[in-house]
Amino acid sequence: MNDAPFTFELLASQGNARAGVFNTPHGKLLTPVFAPVGTQAAVKALTPAQVEELGASLILANTYHLYLRPGDELVSEMGGLHRFMRWEKPILTDSGGYQVFSLAETRTVDDDGVTFKSHIDGSLHRFTPEKSIAIQENLGADIIMAFDECADPYDRAYLELAMQRTHVWAERCLQAKTRPDQALFGIVQGGAFLDLRQMSAEYIASLDFPGYAIGGLSVGETKADMHTMIEAVNQALPADKPRYLMGVGTPQDLIEGVRRGIDIFDCVLPTRLARHQAAMTRTGRLNLMNATFSRDPRPIDETCNCYTCRSFSRAYLRHLIVAKEILAATLLSIHNLHTLIALAADIRQSILEGRFEAFADEFIAAQPEIRA
Amino acid sequence: MNDAPFTFELLASQGNARAGVFNTPHGKLLTPVFAPVGTQAAVKALTPAQVEELGASLILANTYHLYLRPGDELVSEMGGLHRFMRWEKPILTDSGGYQVFSLAETRTVDDDGVTFKSHIDGSLHRFTPEKSIAIQENLGADIIMAFDECADPYDRAYLELAMQRTHVWAERCLQAKTRPDQALFGIVQGGAFLDLRQMSAEYIASLDFPGYAIGGLSVGETKADMHTMIEAVNQALPADKPRYLMGVGTPQDLIEGVRRGIDIFDCVLPTRLARHQAAMTRTGRLNLMNATFSRDPRPIDETCNCYTCRSFSRAYLRHLIVAKEILAATLLSIHNLHTLIALAADIRQSILEGRFEAFADEFIAAQPEIRA
Repeated sequence: MNDAPFTFELLASQGNARAGVFNTPHGKLLTPVFAPVGTQAAVKALTPAQVEELGASLILANTYHLYLRPGDELVSEMGGLHRFMRWEKPILTDSGGYQVFSLAETRTVDDDGVTFKSHIDGSLHRFTPEKSIAIQENLGADIIMAFDECADPYDRAYLELAMQRTHVWAERCLQAKTRPDQALFGIVQGGAFLDLRQMSAEYIASLDFPGYAIGGLSVGETKADMHTMIEAVNQALPADKPRYLMGVGTPQDLIEGVRRGIDIFDCVLPTRLARHQAAMTRTGRLNLMNATFSRDPRPIDETCNCYTCRSFSRAYLRHLIVAKEILAATLLSIHNLHTLIALAADIRQSILEGRFEAFADEFIAAQPEIRA
Repeated sequence: MNDAPFTFELLASQGNARAGVFNTPHGKLLTPVFAPVGTQAAVKALTPAQVEELGASLILANTYHLYLRPGDELVSEMGGLHRFMRWEKPILTDSGGYQVFSLAETRTVDDDGVTFKSHIDGSLHRFTPEKSIAIQENLGADIIMAFDECADPYDRAYLELAMQRTHVWAERCLQAKTRPDQALFGIVQGGAFLDLRQMSAEYIASLDFPGYAIGGLSVGETKADMHTMIEAVNQALPADKPRYLMGVGTPQDLIEGVRRGIDIFDCVLPTRLARHQAAMTRTGRLNLMNATFSRDPRPIDETCNCYTCRSFSRAYLRHLIVAKEILAATLLSIHNLHTLIALAADIRQSILEGRFEAFADEFIAAQPEIRA
């Protein structure tokens, strides 16, 4: 394994909050960074040109979905994911673990891997750590993830078993990996139990990964438990490697995650809310279907400089929603993703300027929680 | 009425084909020109930035739809259609006549106007020539259309009645019009009957409109009849005013229309085909759902320089379609609209360079007909 391209430079820190640069073969990630999700090799309702224009630098694609459709071998044949979906900047693929375990009643786990039924046609498939890495090597993302088992955060007996599997699988993933132009990140599990999280973080940290992720959060545990787990894990992870909090979150989650040492975030929330007619702003959530917006000439957020807010009134956006125009999802996705990406950039700037704590406190005090 | 801004300059002609410039308060239209349709104040699946980037200069919006939703008074309150939908270039609105008459069983026509039921909620409404103009003045397009009656192109008895109404209504529209920054175009009817078309063209031409349209074509008549009608009408229309063939068409229709003296076209075909997974090219139609494209690394059209063809393979587009990603409709709409807009520009250039007939003959010989 050669992770030479994947250096991580820490530029500034304040408490546990850090601002850094993670170097990848497709360019630098300025951390903290928020990654839009392009599950099926497309950020929903947006062209890659729009995703780039709204400020994204990293996007996530899902191994489970792309393995099933169009198939990782086809993607490889077409020159890999960057070329296939025309995204020249960094890409991260997950391992497929989370999706497979989400299938609940249509999969069986053993110590070697997972057998599952496709949600598309019911056909039978099997993922092992080696298979997940092989698929991710075909896809060709810059950052790939170890195959892990995600479980109920409060089911201690099962979590112990899943954590042990995750640890063995992490080593198998390291062994299986062959491409020097991909960084394999290890994943810490352990649910909502402090001792399990500490144990998992120490074990995964003992393996030589160029970056680390926290998995199995934002899956039903309380926010307080989530924060406790992030703190505990990050204390055990090396400071000189990037830390990725998987599948999280809201604007508040970004603030609270960075406050506890997280560098990378991804979440489907901005694009999912957009398809459900909701705009995320720094001061809350607007349900644009609401009749109160029908004659409102203001943009979603007067302080936002995204294309949507520079161009369109709430009245127009509401009209598009009521008239069932696809454009509504596009314009709200642009705004919602921009909100999180610009927030990550502002957080970064506040760390570089030594005023993160004030920024964070003010932000949390001002904003009601946005829920999925 | 003051049509001072709406001058039409003829730059070149070859046979009946013309290249010109139509001046509007929102900029010049270089004719021949093809207009994308934005029925509900949005070109389906595209942002106005994308519509501009693919080369559009004129877009059409539908009075019937916007009157019902969000309401023309709301659009006026929001600063008019240009500002509401953020399109700074010229806009054309139809009169609502065609849509209302398409409602068939839920409307009744009399000599004064039409009473109809909304397709949205079944509520009862009435359009008269004066009402259509008032709505179009609220919407605020650069080019507005006279309220006309469109009928079965082969039902002579009814066509005579509808044509007479259309003539009376044209005069009432001229009387009703108040805004000097809008050009009201007259509409010629008469179905597929040569003498009716001649009579209608002569009558409408006798009224002082800054532009003329041919309505009631591409509604079931044969292509041969369509061509005969266009020729007859254009012989009777003044040469120094732009001529608009409403709701037409395919690449072939553009060629054959220009050959017979048409300057302006609009059609929903490019965006509708895009939403049905079909790409229009100068050499035919590609149904991208077809499995033969699943591993095809080529763009839709190697000679096309639209964003879609510059960026994506047929394999990727097919994947988006199979995976039901909204992005498929967006990327195909960009390509299909670009195909017609670039074709209109190429036709124009061929006229300016005196080689239109050769261009037209070669094009028609090479391309199979694309059907809706």
